Amino acid sequence: MLIPPHGGALVDLRLTPDDVASARENAQKMPRIRLDRKEIDDLEMLATGVYSPLRGFMGQSDFFSVLERMRLKDDTVWPLPVTLRATAEEIDHIGTSDRIALENETGTILAVMELHERFLAERSSTARAIYGTDDPAHPGVQTLMSEGDFCLGGSLQVLDLPARKRFLPYRLEPSDTRREFEKRGWSRVVGFQTRNPLHHAHEYIQKCALEEVDGLILQPIVDDPKPDDVPAAVRMKTYEAIFAHYYPPEHSMISIFPEFMQYAGPREAVFHALCRKNYGCSHFIVGRDHAGVGNYYGPYDAQRIFSRFEPNEIGIIPIFFEVAFYCRRCENMATLKTCPHKAEDHVLYSGTQIRTMLRAGEPPPREFTRPEVAEILIEAYRTL
Amino acid sequence: MLIPPHGGALVDLRLTPDDVASARENAQKMPRIRLDRKEIDDLEMLATGVYSPLRGFMGQSDFFSVLERMRLKDDTVWPLPVTLRATAEEIDHIGTSDRIALENETGTILAVMELHERFLAERSSTARAIYGTDDPAHPGVQTLMSEGDFCLGGSLQVLDLPARKRFLPYRLEPSDTRREFEKRGWSRVVGFQTRNPLHHAHEYIQKCALEEVDGLILQPIVDDPKPDDVPAAVRMKTYEAIFAHYYPPEHSMISIFPEFMQYAGPREAVFHALCRKNYGCSHFIVGRDHAGVGNYYGPYDAQRIFSRFEPNEIGIIPIFFEVAFYCRRCENMATLKTCPHKAEDHVLYSGTQIRTMLRAGEPPPREFTRPEVAEILIEAYRTL
Repeated sequence: MLIPPHGGALVDLRLTPDDVASARENAQKMPRIRLDRKEIDDLEMLATGVYSPLRGFMGQSDFFSVLERMRLKDDTVWPLPVTLRATAEEIDHIGTSDRIALENETGTILAVMELHERFLAERSSTARAIYGTDDPAHPGVQTLMSEGDFCLGGSLQVLDLPARKRFLPYRLEPSDTRREFEKRGWSRVVGFQTRNPLHHAHEYIQKCALEEVDGLILQPIVDDPKPDDVPAAVRMKTYEAIFAHYYPPEHSMISIFPEFMQYAGPREAVFHALCRKNYGCSHFIVGRDHAGVGNYYGPYDAQRIFSRFEPNEIGIIPIFFEVAFYCRRCENMATLKTCPHKAEDHVLYSGTQIRTMLRAGEPPPREFTRPEVAEILIEAYRTL
Repeated sequence: MLIPPHGGALVDLRLTPDDVASARENAQKMPRIRLDRKEIDDLEMLATGVYSPLRGFMGQSDFFSVLERMRLKDDTVWPLPVTLRATAEEIDHIGTSDRIALENETGTILAVMELHERFLAERSSTARAIYGTDDPAHPGVQTLMSEGDFCLGGSLQVLDLPARKRFLPYRLEPSDTRREFEKRGWSRVVGFQTRNPLHHAHEYIQKCALEEVDGLILQPIVDDPKPDDVPAAVRMKTYEAIFAHYYPPEHSMISIFPEFMQYAGPREAVFHALCRKNYGCSHFIVGRDHAGVGNYYGPYDAQRIFSRFEPNEIGIIPIFFEVAFYCRRCENMATLKTCPHKAEDHVLYSGTQIRTMLRAGEPPPREFTRPEVAEILIEAYRTL
């Protein structure tokens, strides 16, 4: 028996194939709003139930309830707003229409929105509520600042999912992963979120968690939001390599988490957990500075935030880990919770140090990275 | 906040020091029953609340309810009988007395029992219910067969705990471990039961579990019940050595589980878990063939049995592990759940193989045992 989706039922906002043609014709007459990259991702996740129980972009009362208390107005835990933002010009353009068409960057209509509300949701105060900062250097703030000051709230009828060209075999919806888990006989599944190549530290944490459940699902983000991230195509090769060599296929799988990363730290950790619950995960790994960036959040804020909710309000069980390292005295991977030795015995490198090695064509030490992963990264850095 | 004891409150059956002297004087006139080694251990565990909510040796309705459905007559989960057994001669000796004195092997009165019931609890059928066998080669059956066919049920007033000479610093009662956990700020604590030296496989399982909680308590059994077991004094040295070198004291501790091992497999796994709940553990590790012996139980029976109860009836969370090994291709510890490689890559020895190496003065491979542990075992085998 898999965990039930958040709110009880998996949402699917797509029209049946029979209804799409007429809906598309009707939509031609509606005012259009062009979705930005984040909204495209949100649309897909709304449509396929990753955001269950949400059925559209948030209205005013949900929006402010989420900002203030990390709950929808009906008290369901939900830590991040999911908004369709618009500028004053777009609001003018919509006029008095109560239905609008949402299009992608090439003008294809993806969805029709029953427009229930238009409201002002000033960006700086929104940023401070979500990210704890309105510093434009914060990548989440940066995205928000590129959008309008108004929000359009309403329910969605989805005609078409955003076209995806890359990583198609890994694009599983919540209904797909749930079916796959059931097929494999997994009832306890741990989800792992990443936007980085997997080093030993990640593998250790994943496998510690896997030892106590039936299966592991690695869910990388593939929308590369930060220029210094390793590109998704390279990362995917490293995931494939490490899975092929070191993960038993009966107990592990990869699928994409099609999120536009927000770097909202603690709030995004809860958000990541709830989305994984919809994918069918019973457990979710929350590491040090989960979904963090720079020094905006304390290293354990994203773990502590879970204590603000009753376990049954979240449903999925968060598993908290510290930073893992290879210890030369233990002769194995460990954390400060399981290793009594001093820092000088620990093999631990920063992302910057690893990038410097890779750029110099130097493989990171075997105690840090699997050779199969190092090889792909070195080759990628050579040609980048 | 620590987990509440089983049944809600920690039992303590000891008289206050003021009352002991008069109770001892009164007890002089009562018929006496001499406790065997198992009953001595049970008395201590009853007295100190390890068996909360039990307040004495079981009466007939609890006894048969436990045998048939692993519950006390009030439905509380309890998988093993806790009995004071008597022969027909002892029943005669007691006569019509409703209070009896329980003495140790030197004649010291440890407790007074308010005798509520005397009942026949035929040993062979009892053995089959508890152990699934009445084979006299089974060590639990063997103990039972050395006792009488009758049981004496009643509540206890404990005058004195059994005198213990060895391992005194490690003899912590449930109230002691709970105080210690609180002092250390642990609220999630995993318990580990053992009657063997710790090899890498045990350390790996313990540390996997520890990564997800606050603390680990190693609770060895020290009543050496089987002749081929490594003697408790030697084992304790190995525990001290491995803890000193490889376990952070802020997250780990040792205390004795003063049980007379029963080898009841699945039932004893649940029993071990419930006792650990009384010590304050939130989690308990159940390995392959937990509390098993020979081939009397299936390798995962002791894990599967937990699914017969609702999680809230047990309270403590069982964590299930497979057999761990060092994998030469993974270059780390793993189980079949986390390693995809073949058996020939796995460093795995039987107890017999390890004993043969140790007897020959040969240290087991570094991938199997910590050198500090190997050294103590070799020295012990040399002098045994």
